[in-house]
Parts: sequence; structure tokens; C-alpha cells
Amino acid sequence: MGKPLVGIIMGSQSDLVIMKEAAEFLDELKIPFEVSIVSAHRTPARMVAYAESARARGLRVIIAGAGGAAHLPGMIASMTSLPVIGVPVKSSNSIDGWDSVLSILQMPSGVPVATVALNGARNAGILACQVLGSTDKSIARKLDQFKKSLREKVEESAKTVIRKGWKKA
Amino acid sequence: MGKPLVGIIMGSQSDLVIMKEAAEFLDELKIPFEVSIVSAHRTPARMVAYAESARARGLRVIIAGAGGAAHLPGMIASMTSLPVIGVPVKSSNSIDGWDSVLSILQMPSGVPVATVALNGARNAGILACQVLGSTDKSIARKLDQFKKSLREKVEESAKTVIRKGWKKA
Amino acid sequence: MGKPLVGIIMGSQSDLVIMKEAAEFLDELKIPFEVSIVSAHRTPARMVAYAESARARGLRVIIAGAGGAAHLPGMIASMTSLPVIGVPVKSSNSIDGWDSVLSILQMPSGVPVATVALNGARNAGILACQVLGSTDKSIARKLDQFKKSLREKVEESAKTVIRKGWKKA
Amino acid sequence: MGKPLVGIIMGSQSDLVIMKEAAEFLDELKIPFEVSIVSAHRTPARMVAYAESARARGLRVIIAGAGGAAHLPGMIASMTSLPVIGVPVKSSNSIDGWDSVLSILQMPSGVPVATVALNGARNAGILACQVLGSTDKSIARKLDQFKKSLREKVEESAKTVIRKGWKKA
Amino acid sequence: MGKPLVGIIMGSQSDLVIMKEAAEFLDELKIPFEVSIVSAHRTPARMVAYAESARARGLRVIIAGAGGAAHLPGMIASMTSLPVIGVPVKSSNSIDGWDSVLSILQMPSGVPVATVALNGARNAGILACQVLGSTDKSIARKLDQFKKSLREKVEESAKTVIRKGWKKA
Amino acid sequence: MGKPLVGIIMGSQSDLVIMKEAAEFLDELKIPFEVSIVSAHRTPARMVAYAESARARGLRVIIAGAGGAAHLPGMIASMTSLPVIGVPVKSSNSIDGWDSVLSILQMPSGVPVATVALNGARNAGILACQVLGSTDKSIARKLDQFKKSLREKVEESAKTVIRKGWKKA
Amino acid sequence: MGKPLVGIIMGSQSDLVIMKEAAEFLDELKIPFEVSIVSAHRTPARMVAYAESARARGLRVIIAGAGGAAHLPGMIASMTSLPVIGVPVKSSNSIDGWDSVLSILQMPSGVPVATVALNGARNAGILACQVLGSTDKSIARKLDQFKKSLREKVEESAKTVIRKGWKKA
Amino acid sequence: MGKPLVGIIMGSQSDLVIMKEAAEFLDELKIPFEVSIVSAHRTPARMVAYAESARARGLRVIIAGAGGAAHLPGMIASMTSLPVIGVPVKSSNSIDGWDSVLSILQMPSGVPVATVALNGARNAGILACQVLGSTDKSIARKLDQFKKSLREKVEESAKTVIRKGWKKA
Repeated sequence: MGKPLVGIIMGSQSDLVIMKEAAEFLDELKIPFEVSIVSAHRTPARMVAYAESARARGLRVIIAGAGGAAHLPGMIASMTSLPVIGVPVKSSNSIDGWDSVLSILQMPSGVPVATVALNGARNAGILACQVLGSTDKSIARKLDQFKKSLREKVEESAKTVIRKGWKKA
Repeated sequence: MGKPLVGIIMGSQSDLVIMKEAAEFLDELKIPFEVSIVSAHRTPARMVAYAESARARGLRVIIAGAGGAAHLPGMIASMTSLPVIGVPVKSSNSIDGWDSVLSILQMPSGVPVATVALNGARNAGILACQVLGSTDKSIARKLDQFKKSLREKVEESAKTVIRKGWKKA
Repeated sequence: MGKPLVGIIMGSQSDLVIMKEAAEFLDELKIPFEVSIVSAHRTPARMVAYAESARARGLRVIIAGAGGAAHLPGMIASMTSLPVIGVPVKSSNSIDGWDSVLSILQMPSGVPVATVALNGARNAGILACQVLGSTDKSIARKLDQFKKSLREKVEESAKTVIRKGWKKA
Repeated sequence: MGKPLVGIIMGSQSDLVIMKEAAEFLDELKIPFEVSIVSAHRTPARMVAYAESARARGLRVIIAGAGGAAHLPGMIASMTSLPVIGVPVKSSNSIDGWDSVLSILQMPSGVPVATVALNGARNAGILACQVLGSTDKSIARKLDQFKKSLREKVEESAKTVIRKGWKKA
Repeated sequence: MGKPLVGIIMGSQSDLVIMKEAAEFLDELKIPFEVSIVSAHRTPARMVAYAESARARGLRVIIAGAGGAAHLPGMIASMTSLPVIGVPVKSSNSIDGWDSVLSILQMPSGVPVATVALNGARNAGILACQVLGSTDKSIARKLDQFKKSLREKVEESAKTVIRKGWKKA
Repeated sequence: MGKPLVGIIMGSQSDLVIMKEAAEFLDELKIPFEVSIVSAHRTPARMVAYAESARARGLRVIIAGAGGAAHLPGMIASMTSLPVIGVPVKSSNSIDGWDSVLSILQMPSGVPVATVALNGARNAGILACQVLGSTDKSIARKLDQFKKSLREKVEESAKTVIRKGWKKA
Repeated sequence: MGKPLVGIIMGSQSDLVIMKEAAEFLDELKIPFEVSIVSAHRTPARMVAYAESARARGLRVIIAGAGGAAHLPGMIASMTSLPVIGVPVKSSNSIDGWDSVLSILQMPSGVPVATVALNGARNAGILACQVLGSTDKSIARKLDQFKKSLREKVEESAKTVIRKGWKKA
Repeated sequence: MGKPLVGIIMGSQSDLVIMKEAAEFLDELKIPFEVSIVSAHRTPARMVAYAESARARGLRVIIAGAGGAAHLPGMIASMTSLPVIGVPVKSSNSIDGWDSVLSILQMPSGVPVATVALNGARNAGILACQVLGSTDKSIARKLDQFKKSLREKVEESAKTVIRKGWKKA
């Protein structure tokens, strides 16, 4: 698919079940991307290397997902000026997801992370495309097409409700 | 400064005291931008017009701030495929800011908002530059320079602590 | 059943399992109503059309349910002066329902939404009838009858506890 | 102003500073109303009398505000089939307002309270008018006029920002 | 067992599965008690009658359990000077139990409810005995015996862990 | 005033500003009581001595207030079968009072603490009297008188609102 | 394994399923330890004895786990100057774990508890080793080896993702 | 004072007003320590260098304080096997301190941080001494002396309350 424009990383292989939704969307739009496991707390050197080489390797956006005290997105953002999209993952032993949400969202002034909803990996994929589509017209067109499909699915279900009646729909 | 690349909007003039920090950062980096008041709940038609015309008017990123049940960022995102950065503003009568944080962050699948920290307008400005700098090398260089200045300020304060001693610093 | 007086809308067909309880109550009281799918984020134009035509089409109350960053009730309320009843739906990936509760309840001054409990669609249906029954005596009588049935059911269960004993009831 | 159509009650005279905003809006729209102090916990008999006589006395909507473990709105709703609008008041010693919000919002099935935002008394007044305006065209016209004034104020402030520039607005 | 000294009431028969733990403890200590269903919101008159007659009927303590916007304990406390013990019940559609906890605990000055833990009905039964045992030596002795049994069970399990080893205990 | 029937203890002298409201109510009703400082964490032996001697010294109820990780009420309750009333105090550095509320309320099965509202020391004093008044008719009469005074104050303020008008009251 | 250096205690045998993860880590590193059941609320005297004898018996660190209003770690810390590591256990009827987290973490000035994550017993075991390894080089070496194994597992899973592809990993 | 045994670091000079309480306690006990500013997000390389050299430089414990999305303590812990004590600082724009508490406390399995209370820097200093005192008898003696002083202060204030009376103390 060409050189990856988007890097998708996560703290643990167990996050892949959530994070693959980001990959799937990029796949649908035929945006080249890469997927890897990078842990802030267990492989800090690997994380530094990933962040520092990211722009030079051609990445334009990084999507980072993590759970609990989720430091990966913010730490990556501290070491690159590429936009970093953070996905709070609701891990086991999480306190209802609040821990990952707050440790990704509440970054200090100077080092933003573009945070999406809890487990919102698909939205992270869409947002990455929107960043790319900000200047790339062909991606923008695909996104407009995608938005149209969202609309059509709702309209379809509205018709279903009328056809079947609300009791059975 | 040339045609605006970034649109900064907010639900109420009272949000300007927070939101102007986004403008200030764009100003520092000499990125052309526009600032306006657009309320999801009081001027819905104005909001629709803003969102639908944004890309055609040359905008590449939209920053939207709002407090309480903060619908502006999400509704703008529903009507454009440009990346939308949401700033939760802690308004009076807010329940500790949770309302604006959650009503911006927790967007449904298909319509992401790149959410930053509570009152994090400066970070929204930085993130907007990172989106532009994803493909624009001169902006990327400015961001790297900015990151360097962040580092230097910390190093400076570390020296101050040593020079003055921790009791007096 | 005659021209609909109450419009029941929701962001997604998956909300119908909760929202049909509103419909069921209106059905019990023989109040004419309509049910449809209208998404703030995926069909914004459809939402605008729905809200702006609501009063002219004869609706007197609108019930809107949504989950997560739930913008539908508030956005509908921004575009009609009909009373809008909001139902926070606890969707998957919700943060315990707080997101939908707060993004419906915490509307800014000028644009109220009459919010009911989390997943409280049946209460939304009852409240819609109370709005209609505010001036319509026959509906008020039905509501008084309904209140009586609530009372009787409790009294019945109180008797059951005495009859069977608390260990077995 | 004629026989009251709306009853505004609150648990304590200290709530009046918040609750008078409901009265002010009804005053602006020239809707006849009454204001009283009725405490669920300190005057339960008075509360019962108020609720049970409300419809017969000509009231069409009741607005009830209370703080902390706020039982007044729900208890009133248990004894009348009129629509009851609940205003969570953030009292001293409240736990950030969560107590009054949850004890008003989370009513059990069968007995809804139309809850508005924390300290949202003005919105309660507006909502009461929307209930009356559901069938009364002259009130509906006033509400549309009010919505127009909201819009115009935002447009005015948008112009101010352009005229003065964002730095000074 | 003689005239009831403790009244155990709850808003719904579905609460009995939790609330019967209070009854069981009173049963163990052979304290005469009664169990009934009394709903604040569905049988307000029944609730008034219950509270106002309680002391005259010989009750010395009332245990009241309810879920969601749980008004029963506080309303009972408003109409009797007997001590009222409140049990927050975690009902379905509760927001994690916070609603019942806060609407029972956060009573305004003048009208206390002795609140126990979420679903803590057994502790409510124990607390009722402690109130009775405050002046009744035979009950106090039973409670001391009960405390001893708690201690012994822990000591027993400590021995089990040693005997079986921590891997198998 | 005779031998103390109620013991009021708190973890720190700084809690006295809140806790004295309990003392003031007992004073009003002429119930003999004692006040002392007993810290679970700084004077554990003193706490053990206090709890173990309480019943023998003639106390019938213990009121214990503490902030933060508030262990005093629960630990006292673990060492006496007297009823223990817990007052969560909102100390500095508290996380909005949640820490003291939860560490007092959520006692495990077997060891209840009768918890009152955050900073609700006056209610703790009232509840202590209700415990005593459960069997003591003269105290019960005083409590009924107190309840009457609460009612009269509300009725008085209701009249004030009518006399002065809601705008000025 | 020699005289225990670490004491692992918990309020109830039911906590063992969580707390044994602390023991397992100590076992892996061959650090001698003991496991026991000590309840703050059901065996206060046993708790006092445990805390007061701990240092003399040769313990160097205590790990204490408890759920709900979790007083064990803080009370142990009040009676020994050994470092105490607290493990908040998410018990049944816990309010999402917040109760145990806050009643362990929010200790007052003077009496710290080293708190780890909800159900984080394994981390408590690791932290105990880090305390011992602060001065003991052979333990430090084992910990460095352990950190290396964490890193290698992540690197292994990164390779797995590449080998199998993100769709199948 | 000799070679530092404890390193106290914080993300920003503005944290010093809180964090100096850790230094003050170490000063009181005459434990040699160092204080520096190290930001995870603004000086990641400096942070790596600090963590990796810590043990070799003779440090035995590290105290790290940070606010908001507080990554410093956890990241330091990822790169050293020394015990790391984390102090959640309540910064401006914090969401009531929850962000720093959760992003320090909820570390994943393998990498513990010994977390103390919000703004609990003094307790971090005490805990650091407890870690050192685990094997060092002279420090242990100082800590026992310190615990005694805590006890004496409470006993003093208990006497003050008796001497002055609770109304005036």
C-alpha cells in the first residue's frame, strides 16, 4: 500500500481487539499505515525511538491507544511534533475507564493529544484521515463519501422503522 | 496574514477569555486564522452555514470551544470532513467541567472530535498547527522550535532551583 | 389514531429497545404519536428539517433519546419552541451513562431540555402525556387513573409480603 | 396578572436567589404565576396540600427547586399528574451539585420529573412556558420571539468580535 | 415474637432480595419486627400514614430501603422523630448506585437519615439492634456475642490460610 | 449536666469548627455530652481505650467526625456495640469530600456506621437525640417540638415571600 | 525460605484471590514472606498486635489489601514506622472501587500509605521488592532482570503482530 | 549533608510550593536529598537520563510530583527499579485532582508507583524515610520519635479542648 502515513501503536497486544478498528477504517480508505506494540512503561526506549523517528520515516499522524494510567499517547506527543491521536482503552481493572480518559485528555499546556472517546479506535482512524484530508483532496472526497454512507444508513433504518412499525423494528 | 487556515469558534463571547489562547498561539506561529462566535443552541442556522462552507472557504482545521452541554464541536464535526478540535470550557454552573468534557469527548462512531484538556485552548492552537505541520515543513520547523523552547524553560527553572535552593525558588 | 401529537425520535435504531417504552405508554393512553430515527451527527439536515417542521405538522411535544455525547435533544430544542423531553440512553462504550446524562441535562440558559432518568423512556412517555394533560382533561383523567394503578400495585405487593411472609415473598 | 398558571416552589428561602430567575422569565412573558416556600422535609403536610390542590387551583405546571437530597420535585410529582419541572440547586455542603442533580433526575418508572441543569431556574421558567405554549399560540409566538432575541444577541457579539478584534473583545 | 420494635420498609417488592438481610439479622437476635412495602412515589399517602403512626404503634427504629432517586428514608424521617436508617439499594438503571447513596445521605440540616453502605441491609439490621441495645442490656449482650463471632470467623480463616497454605486457601 | 450520654470525638482540633454543631444541638436539648479529640491515625491506642470504655462509662451513642481517609468512625464501631454516628468532614486537600464520605459510609457487613451528610454535624447531634428518644419520652417530646420549630420557620419564610414579594424577599 | 521480610495481610479470606498475586511475585523472586488474614473491623486487637510486633518480628515491609471502607492499610500504618503498601480491592457492593481507592489513598499528613492501583496486588509485591532492593543489590539485580523480561514480552508481541499481521494477531 | 539518598523531582517549578513539604520532612530528619525540575512532557530526554542514572548516583528512593495527566512518576518507574513515590498535584485546570490521582495511581501490572494523597508531598517525604528506615535503625528511631510527636500534639489539643471548653477551643 505504499509507505505508511499513519502509525497505530498500543501498549499491549491485548489492546489490539479495540485498536484494530482504527486500522480497519484506514484500510477501507486505502491509506497506508503500520501497526505495532509499543509500551511506555515496559519498553520506554522503544517508545523514544518510535517517536523520534516517526516524522523522518514518513509518518504524518500517530494513533496511540492505552488503558489505565495511559501514558503512551502523551509521551509520544512529547517527542514529536506530529499530531498524536489518543485512544483511551477500557482495560480490565480500569476504574470505569476514567483513568485512561483523564491520563490521555488532561495533557499540560504545550503538549496536546487529540483525544477521542473511550474505546473510540474507529474514530481515531477517521480523525487520522481527516488530518490527511485537510490538504489531500482525494482523501477529503472519500471522507465526504463516508459521511454520506453514515447518513444513508440512518435514513435506511428510519425507513425500516416505518415499514416494520416501531413494535417490531 | 493571508486567507485563514484555521477557524476558531465558540458558543459565547464569554468563552473568549479562554479561547483567545488558541488564537495567541496561531499568532505566534504566524498562521492565518479567523475568530467568531457561533452558538449551536442559539444560532443553529449560523452553525450549519459555518460548517458547510468551511472547507470551500479555505479552512483546514476548525477549533470549537463550548461549555456545559457542549454541542458545538460535535455538531460542526457532523457537517464537515475537516478535522475539528474541541475545547471543553469550564463555564459557570458547570458540574466541575465534567459536562463539557464528556459532551465533546464521547462522540459516537463515525464523527470524531479531537478533544483537548479542560480549558486547553492553547493546546488546541498547538494541535491545529500540528495538523497543518503534518505536511507543511516550515510549520513543522516552527513547532520543533517551540518544543525546544518548552524544554529550555524547564532547564532554566531547574537551574533556578539549584541556584536559589529549593527553599527560596 | 389521528394526527401525531408526540414525536419520538432517537439517534440510532439500536436505541429503539429502550425508546419503545415511551411509545408503549402513549399507546396505552391512546395518544397519537410517531416514531422515527433522526441522528444529530449522521443526519444533521434531517434533524433540522424535523425540528423546524414539528409544530406546523401538529406535534405538541418531542421526545428525543440518545447516548454518549448525546446532542439530539438539545439541538432539537434549539430549533423549536415545543417542549423537548430528553432521554439519556446508556449506550455501549458509554462511561456509565454519565456522558449522555450530562450532555442532555446541562443545557445552557435559554434552551431547556426536560431531562428524565437514564434509560427512562417510559417516564418520557408519561411526561409527554402530562404536558398534554396540562390542558386536556380527558388525558389528565387517564393519568390519574394510571397513578391509581401504580398505587394499587404497591398495595398488592404489600399484601403479598404479608400473606407469604417476608422470607418467601 | 390573573390566576396563576405556574407554581414556583422551593425548599428554603435561601433558594430564592436562584429560583427567582424562573419567576423573572414568566414575568417577561406575562404568564401569571405564584411563588412559595414548601419544604419536603420540614413541612411535609404543606407539601401534600400544595400538590393535591394544584390542578384544582388552576395551576398547569409546577416548578420545584431544591438542593442536597432534593426530594421536593419528586414528591410533588408523586401527588399530582401535572407536569413538574425540577431545578437542582447547588446548596452549600452539596457534593458539587451531584446530590441534587441525581435525587431529582433519577426518578423511578411511573413518576417523571422534567429536570433542568444545575441552578437552571431560568430554563425551568422557559420550559414551563413551552409546556403552556404547546397548545397556546400566543405564548408560542412569544417563545419564538424570545428564541429570535437569543440569536440576535449572539450575532451581535459576533459582530463585536470582528469590530474590536479578538484581542480586545 | 411480640409487638414489632423495628419497621422495615422498602419502595418495591423487588428490593426485598436486598432488604431481607436486615430482617434476617433481627430474626437471629430475636428482635420483633415488621416488613412492608411503602413507596414514596407511588403510595405517598400510605407513606405518610406509616410515618405518622410509627411511634404510637410501638416502633422504635425504622429501616427504609430504596433505589434511584431514593426519597423514602428521608421522607419518613421528615414525619417522625424516631431514628430512621436508610439503605441505598442499587437498582437497575441506577447510575452505579450514586443516585440512591446521595439522595439518602445528603439530607438537609434538621432531618437526618442514618445511612449505611450501598446494599448494606444487613448492617441496617445490626444498627437497629445497636440503637435498641443502647439502653437494653440483653440486646447489648447479644451484639457483643455477635461481634465475638465476627472475630472468631476471621481467626478461623487465618488458621485455614496457614493450614492450607496461601496457594490453596 | 449529669453524666455524658453522648460522646463527640473528632480526628483533629481543626474539625471542631464543623463538629461543634453537634454539641450545640445536644446543648439545646440539654442532653449531657462530652467532646474530645481522638485520632485514629495519630493516637490509635487512645482510640482503642475510648471505644472499649465507652459503654462502661455510660455513653449511649458516639458521634465521630473525620476527613480524608476517615477511619475514626469505622474503627470506633469495630470496638463497641454502641451505635456510632459518622460525620464526613470536608477537609483541605479532600477530593471534594468523596474520600471522607466513602471511607465512612461503605463499611463492610457486620460493622455499621450511621453516616450523615458531608459536614452534617448538626444532623449527627439530632440523630443522637433520636436514638436516645427512641425509648425516652421526654427527649422524644423535645424532638417533636424541634420538628415543629422547623416547620414554623418555613411557614414564616413563606409568609415573608408573600409579604415582601418574590423580587425583594 | 528464611524469616519473612514481607507481611501480606488482608481483611478477608475472599480477598486472597486478588492478594495472592503479591505473594506469587515474592515467590518468584524468592523473598521470604508471610500471608495472613487480619481484619481492621472484625479483629481490631489482632490488627494492633500485628502492627506493633511487625518490625520486631523482622518484617521490613507490610502489604495490606482491603475493600470498601478499607481501613486496614491506614490503621497498620498508624502503628508501625515500617513502609505500608495498600492494595484497594474491588469488593462486591463496592461503588466501582472508588471507596477502597479513596479510603486507602487519602491518608492524612503524618501517616502515609503507599497505594497501588485497584486490585494491583502484583504491583504491591513488586513495590515491596523495590523497597527491599533499594539497599539489597541482589534483589535489585532480580528486579532489573524482571524489567528486562517485561520488555522482552512486549518486543515478542510486537514481532507476533508483524508476523501474523494485525488482522489475525 | 552527604550524598543524596532521595531524589525529589517535579514537572514544573510551580509544583514546588507543594513539593517542598517533602523536602522539609527529609530536612527535619537530616536525610540527604536533592531537588530538581524534570518534565516528562517538556524534557523527556532529561527524564530518561535522570531515571537511568538514579541508582548509580546513589539514590535509594525517588519522589516525583506532577499534576493533570501526570506521567512523570510512572515514566520514571518504567526506567529504574528504585521505589518511586508519586505525588498527585492539584494543578489549575485540573478536574478536581482526579486526573493526577488516576494517572499516577492506576499503573499497569509490572510498574508500580507508590502513590500518596492529593497534594500529599509531606507524606511522600515520610514514606521515603520509611523506605530508608526499613533497614536503617537510626532512621527508624527518628520515625518512631516523629510518630510520638504526632500523638503528643493530638493529646495536647485534646487537653486544650477540655481546658477551654468546646465552645471556645
